[in-house]
Amino acid sequence: MAAAVRLFAAKGFDATTVQEVVEAAEVTKGALYHYFGSKDDLLFEIYRSLIGRQMAELDRIVALDLDPATTVREIVVSLVETTAASVDEAAVFMREMHRLDADLMASFRAERRRYHETFRAVVEQAQASGRFSAVVPAETAVLIALGVVNQLPTWYRPDGPKSATLLGNEIADFVLAALRV
Amino acid sequence: MAAAVRLFAAKGFDATTVQEVVEAAEVTKGALYHYFGSKDDLLFEIYRSLIGRQMAELDRIVALDLDPATTVREIVVSLVETTAASVDEAAVFMREMHRLDADLMASFRAERRRYHETFRAVVEQAQASGRFSAVVPAETAVLIALGVVNQLPTWYRPDGPKSATLLGNEIADFVLAALRV
Repeated sequence: MAAAVRLFAAKGFDATTVQEVVEAAEVTKGALYHYFGSKDDLLFEIYRSLIGRQMAELDRIVALDLDPATTVREIVVSLVETTAASVDEAAVFMREMHRLDADLMASFRAERRRYHETFRAVVEQAQASGRFSAVVPAETAVLIALGVVNQLPTWYRPDGPKSATLLGNEIADFVLAALRV
Repeated sequence: MAAAVRLFAAKGFDATTVQEVVEAAEVTKGALYHYFGSKDDLLFEIYRSLIGRQMAELDRIVALDLDPATTVREIVVSLVETTAASVDEAAVFMREMHRLDADLMASFRAERRRYHETFRAVVEQAQASGRFSAVVPAETAVLIALGVVNQLPTWYRPDGPKSATLLGNEIADFVLAALRV
C-alpha cells in the first residue's frame, strides 16, 4: 500500500500499472492479488485503512459521553491528527477516488456517511438540549468542520509552523465559538 | 473549454487526448492550439476563468468598504454562488491540478494566494480594531471558510435541497458567529 501511494502520487492512478506496484513493493503479482482483487481495491484500501482508524476514534470518543464541547474538540483534534499523519494517503485518495468502480464508490459513500452522521448527531443533540446554538443547522456546521480537514492535504506540510494538534485545537476553538449559545 | 471539462470529468485528464477534445468541440487542432498552447494550458484556463471571476468579485466587494461582517458575508456568499455555478469546472480542476507543469502550478498558487491574502486582510483588520474576536488566528478562520467552499464540488448538487445563496448565507452565519466579540 505504501508503494502504491507513492506511485499514485507521482504518476497518477491511471498511469500506474500493477506491474510497477509489485516491483516497487518487491512482491510478486500473485502476492498482491492474494490481498487486493484489483488496482481499484488497492486504492480503496488506502482510504479504508485511514477512515477505519478515524471511525474507531470517533466511536471511542462518543462512547466516553463527555459534555458536547469536549466531544466536538476531541473529534476535531483526532481527525486533524489522523489526517495529518496520513496526508499522502488522504491526498491520493481525494484526487483519484472518482476512478473507483460503482460498488467501491458506494462503500466509500456509506463509510463517509456513517462518520458524518455520527458527528452530526453530537451537534444536533447539543442543539436540542440548548447547550449549542442552533443559529446554523447541524448539517452545515459538520460540513464546515469536515471541509477544512478534507482540504488539509492540499496545503498541510508536516514541517509547517503549526503541529497537527495545535491546528486541530484552533479549528475546534472556531467551531465551538460559532456554536456557543 | 466546456468540451474539455466534460471529457476530463468522464475519462480523467491523462486519458483524454487533444484529438478527443477537438472532435467533441467540433474545432480543428489548429484552432485549439491558437488559443491553448497545450493540454495543460487548457486545464489551467478552466480554473483561471473561474478564479478570475471570483477575484474580480472579491476586489469589488472589498472596494465597497462596508463593515467587516457585511464584507465577510458578501465574500462567502459570492464564493459559494460562483463555485456552485461552475461546479464541474471546480471538480475537474481540483482533481487534476497536480498534473500541471511547474510554471502553471506556480501561477495557480500565486492566484490562489492573492485571493486568500485579500480575504485574510479583511479578517485581520477587523480583529485589530476589535470588531472581530481574535480567539482564532485570521489565517485559520480563512482556511475554514475557504475549506468548506473548496470541498463543495465533492458533495454539492444543483438540484439539492438548498440553493447556493442559502448555503452561502449559512456558512457566513457560522463564520460570523465564530468571529463575534
